[in-house]
Amino acid sequence: MLQGISNEAFVLGCSAIGAGIAMIAGLGPGIGQGIAAGKGAEAVGRQPEAQGDITRTMLLGQAVAETTGIYSLVIAIILLFVRPLLAGL
Amino acid sequence: MLQGISNEAFVLGCSAIGAGIAMIAGLGPGIGQGIAAGKGAEAVGRQPEAQGDITRTMLLGQAVAETTGIYSLVIAIILLFVRPLLAGL
Amino acid sequence: MLQGISNEAFVLGCSAIGAGIAMIAGLGPGIGQGIAAGKGAEAVGRQPEAQGDITRTMLLGQAVAETTGIYSLVIAIILLFVRPLLAGL
Amino acid sequence: MLQGISNEAFVLGCSAIGAGIAMIAGLGPGIGQGIAAGKGAEAVGRQPEAQGDITRTMLLGQAVAETTGIYSLVIAIILLFVRPLLAGL
Amino acid sequence: MLQGISNEAFVLGCSAIGAGIAMIAGLGPGIGQGIAAGKGAEAVGRQPEAQGDITRTMLLGQAVAETTGIYSLVIAIILLFVRPLLAGL
Amino acid sequence: MLQGISNEAFVLGCSAIGAGIAMIAGLGPGIGQGIAAGKGAEAVGRQPEAQGDITRTMLLGQAVAETTGIYSLVIAIILLFVRPLLAGL
Amino acid sequence: MLQGISNEAFVLGCSAIGAGIAMIAGLGPGIGQGIAAGKGAEAVGRQPEAQGDITRTMLLGQAVAETTGIYSLVIAIILLFVRPLLAGL
Amino acid sequence: MLQGISNEAFVLGCSAIGAGIAMIAGLGPGIGQGIAAGKGAEAVGRQPEAQGDITRTMLLGQAVAETTGIYSLVIAIILLFVRPLLAGL
Amino acid sequence: MLQGISNEAFVLGCSAIGAGIAMIAGLGPGIGQGIAAGKGAEAVGRQPEAQGDITRTMLLGQAVAETTGIYSLVIAIILLFVRPLLAGL
Amino acid sequence: MLQGISNEAFVLGCSAIGAGIAMIAGLGPGIGQGIAAGKGAEAVGRQPEAQGDITRTMLLGQAVAETTGIYSLVIAIILLFVRPLLAGL
Amino acid sequence: MLQGISNEAFVLGCSAIGAGIAMIAGLGPGIGQGIAAGKGAEAVGRQPEAQGDITRTMLLGQAVAETTGIYSLVIAIILLFVRPLLAGL
Amino acid sequence: MLQGISNEAFVLGCSAIGAGIAMIAGLGPGIGQGIAAGKGAEAVGRQPEAQGDITRTMLLGQAVAETTGIYSLVIAIILLFVRPLLAGL
Amino acid sequence: MLQGISNEAFVLGCSAIGAGIAMIAGLGPGIGQGIAAGKGAEAVGRQPEAQGDITRTMLLGQAVAETTGIYSLVIAIILLFVRPLLAGL
Amino acid sequence: MLQGISNEAFVLGCSAIGAGIAMIAGLGPGIGQGIAAGKGAEAVGRQPEAQGDITRTMLLGQAVAETTGIYSLVIAIILLFVRPLLAGL
Repeated sequence: MLQGISNEAFVLGCSAIGAGIAMIAGLGPGIGQGIAAGKGAEAVGRQPEAQGDITRTMLLGQAVAETTGIYSLVIAIILLFVRPLLAGL
Repeated sequence: MLQGISNEAFVLGCSAIGAGIAMIAGLGPGIGQGIAAGKGAEAVGRQPEAQGDITRTMLLGQAVAETTGIYSLVIAIILLFVRPLLAGL
Repeated sequence: MLQGISNEAFVLGCSAIGAGIAMIAGLGPGIGQGIAAGKGAEAVGRQPEAQGDITRTMLLGQAVAETTGIYSLVIAIILLFVRPLLAGL
Repeated sequence: MLQGISNEAFVLGCSAIGAGIAMIAGLGPGIGQGIAAGKGAEAVGRQPEAQGDITRTMLLGQAVAETTGIYSLVIAIILLFVRPLLAGL
Repeated sequence: MLQGISNEAFVLGCSAIGAGIAMIAGLGPGIGQGIAAGKGAEAVGRQPEAQGDITRTMLLGQAVAETTGIYSLVIAIILLFVRPLLAGL
Repeated sequence: MLQGISNEAFVLGCSAIGAGIAMIAGLGPGIGQGIAAGKGAEAVGRQPEAQGDITRTMLLGQAVAETTGIYSLVIAIILLFVRPLLAGL
Repeated sequence: MLQGISNEAFVLGCSAIGAGIAMIAGLGPGIGQGIAAGKGAEAVGRQPEAQGDITRTMLLGQAVAETTGIYSLVIAIILLFVRPLLAGL
Repeated sequence: MLQGISNEAFVLGCSAIGAGIAMIAGLGPGIGQGIAAGKGAEAVGRQPEAQGDITRTMLLGQAVAETTGIYSLVIAIILLFVRPLLAGL
Repeated sequence: MLQGISNEAFVLGCSAIGAGIAMIAGLGPGIGQGIAAGKGAEAVGRQPEAQGDITRTMLLGQAVAETTGIYSLVIAIILLFVRPLLAGL
Repeated sequence: MLQGISNEAFVLGCSAIGAGIAMIAGLGPGIGQGIAAGKGAEAVGRQPEAQGDITRTMLLGQAVAETTGIYSLVIAIILLFVRPLLAGL
Repeated sequence: MLQGISNEAFVLGCSAIGAGIAMIAGLGPGIGQGIAAGKGAEAVGRQPEAQGDITRTMLLGQAVAETTGIYSLVIAIILLFVRPLLAGL
Repeated sequence: MLQGISNEAFVLGCSAIGAGIAMIAGLGPGIGQGIAAGKGAEAVGRQPEAQGDITRTMLLGQAVAETTGIYSLVIAIILLFVRPLLAGL
Repeated sequence: MLQGISNEAFVLGCSAIGAGIAMIAGLGPGIGQGIAAGKGAEAVGRQPEAQGDITRTMLLGQAVAETTGIYSLVIAIILLFVRPLLAGL
Repeated sequence: MLQGISNEAFVLGCSAIGAGIAMIAGLGPGIGQGIAAGKGAEAVGRQPEAQGDITRTMLLGQAVAETTGIYSLVIAIILLFVRPLLAGL
């Protein structure tokens, strides 16, 4: 029945669950960037003199892969801070 | 029963859960772009003089892979800001 | 019981969940296009002089892979804007 | 209890969830066509003079892979527009 | 309790969910046909003069893979149109 | 409570969900036959003069793989047409 | 509460769901036989003169893989026809 | 509440669901035996003169893999026929 | 509420579901033994004169892999026959 | 409400479900030991004269892998026999 | 409502489910140790004279992999015997 | 009904679940960084004189992969400390 | 309603479920350490004279991999013994 | 209804479940670090004289991979000790 729960508490509770689900996306960039780090270390091991170029390319590619993790962070922060403020909660 | 919950709070709560689920899609581009970053670093390690071309192709391909992550972000923001405004919540 | 929830709020809430589920499809193109971007960068690293052809083929293939992500976006937008309007919500 | 929900709202709510679930299928073509795009770019990188033939074969194969994504889109649109109209909702 | 929901609305709602679940099968042909498209493009890249034979074999194989996607579409359409008509809904 | 739902509607609703679940099996043949189509195209690319034999073997193998997809279709159709008729629904 | 549902309808409804779940097993033989079909086509492509032997071995192996799909079909049919008859439903 | 459901109907309903879940195990032998069939066809393609030995070994191995599928079938049949009889249902 | 269900029916129903879940383990030996069968056939194809040794090793290894499938069968049979008898059901 | 269910029946029902879930672990040793059996058969095929050593190592390794399957069996038997006895059920 | 269930039965029931879930971890060591057994048999096949060293290393590594399976067993036994005793159940 | 639960307890309970779900993302960086560590150790084994460069590249890549794990930690801490304080809980 | 359940029993029941879920993590180290054991045995097979070094490195790496399994054990024990004591349960 | 459960017990129960879910993340580092341990042992087997460097790189990489497992431990401990204290539970 949830009869004793106020609107504010209901929205805050759902937002907490939603923010948690949103963060699951972070396992994607985590796996992908780790593979990139491994390939980068392997490439440096084969051509140590090209370390600068390899590292720059790896970081550039990882930076793009990072974005969807940041999107999830943004949505989770909106869920926990911005949205409740706008709704006056 | 949820008897004490207003319509507005119900829609906001569902939107919070929905936005969280939508963000899960972000793990796809995260894995894919990470693989691309790894292959890019590997290719640079083999042909350092072609770094410019490799990086440009990698970024171009990653930019397209980014799109579905952005779609999810857009839908999550619509769920949290635009839709409630239109419905007068 | 959901006794205090109006029809409009019920449909809007279900639409929010449905739109979130629909966006999950975006992880498919994200992974696939990322693999394509990696293969493209690898191919350019092997044949830098064919960069134009490789990039064009990669982008063409990615554009087709993009489509199902766009379908999901379309259905999510219909769920959030078009359908409620038609039903007068 | 859902006592206050009309028949129309119930069907529309279920259709919204069903349309969202149907769109999940889109991750299949997304992954598959991305693999095809990667293989295509790789093949062009090896035989740039055969780009036309490779691209045509890749697009033909991707077009067939696209179909199940389109089926899902069709069912989702039927769920949101055609079916409710027929039932007079 | 669902006390206020008519029989017709209950069956239509379940059919909408069922049709959505049935469409999930579409991700199988999507992945498989995409792999076929990639292998086809690769084979054409190696033997451009056999493009006709390769494409024909690929399309033939994909056509068989398509069938289970079509079965799902058929069941979803039966769920949404044929069955309700027979039951007089 | 589902107090207002007739026996017929309950069975039809469960059958709709069951038919949807049964169709999920279709993703297996879809993936498998797609792999077969890819291998077939690859084999034709290597030995174009054996196309007839390769295609025949591929189709024969795919036909067997098709069967479980057809079983699912049969059960779904029984669920939607035959069973309700026998029970007088 | 399900207060208005008869015993017969309850058993028929559960059987419909159970038959659907049982059919999911069909995706196993579908994937496995597809892999077998691909390997068979590949082997024929390498040794066209041994097509008869290869095809016979492939079909024999696939026939064994088929069995669990048939078991599922048998259980689903028992669930939908035999069991209800025995229980007098 | 399930107040109107008899003990017999409750047990039969649970048995139907349980039999369906048990059959899911069938996807394991399906995948495994399919892999075995593929390897067998490949081996015959390489050594057609050893077809008898290869096929015998493959069938022997598959026969063992079949067992767990048969166990599931046995449990499902017990659930649907033997157990209810013993309990006098 | 399940108010009308006797203790015996409740335990039998739970046992039916539990037996079904236990049988899922059978997909593990199914996949593993299938892989073993494939490797065995492959090995025989390479060294037909060692067929006896290969087959014996394969069967020995498969026999061990079989055990967990048998454990599941044992627990399912205990759930359906032994336990209820001891509890006097 | 489960109002009519005795404490004993509740614990026995939960134990039945718990024993079923515990047995799922058996799919791990099943897959792993199957892979070991395959590798063993392959190794014997390459070095038939070392069959004794290979088989002994394989069986030793499989025996360790068996343990977690036995742990599950032990816990399931405790759940079904030992625990209820201790609690006087 | 679970109104007729005593505290002791509730805790014992939850412990039974919890013990079952904890045992699922056993599939990890099962797969891992099986892979180790396969690699060990393969290594012995290549270097039969090093069997002692290989087997010792394999068993040492497997013993460490066993630990998490034992942790699960420990927690399951605590759940079923130690904890209830301490709480006086 | 949750009638006796205060708003504060409801929000704290949901936050606890949400924080737990958010931490699941940590398995992504864990897998990815482990792969990177393995590739790094392999590369050092091949080129011990380049250890400094390899380790620096590996750590740089892992540091980026770490970020999404940290995002999850941040959201979990916000869920458990910051948000409740702001809401005056 | 759970009306007859005391606070202590509720917390103990939830802790039992939570401890079971926490132990699932143990399948990660189980798989990982098993792979390490396999690689170690393989390496010893290739370089029996380096067994000491290989085993030491393998055990060192496995010891680190063990940690997350131990964390889960610690949390499960806290859930079952420490926390209830502090709360006076 | 949970009517007889105090706020404190509700929060403690949710925290127990949340702590269990958070620990699941530990399977990521477990798999990843195990792969690293395997690669490290392999590398030492190839270059025993570089054992120091390889082990140091492996441990450094594993230490970073460990972090997300520690984050989960921290959140679980906060859930079980710190948060309840702050809330005065």
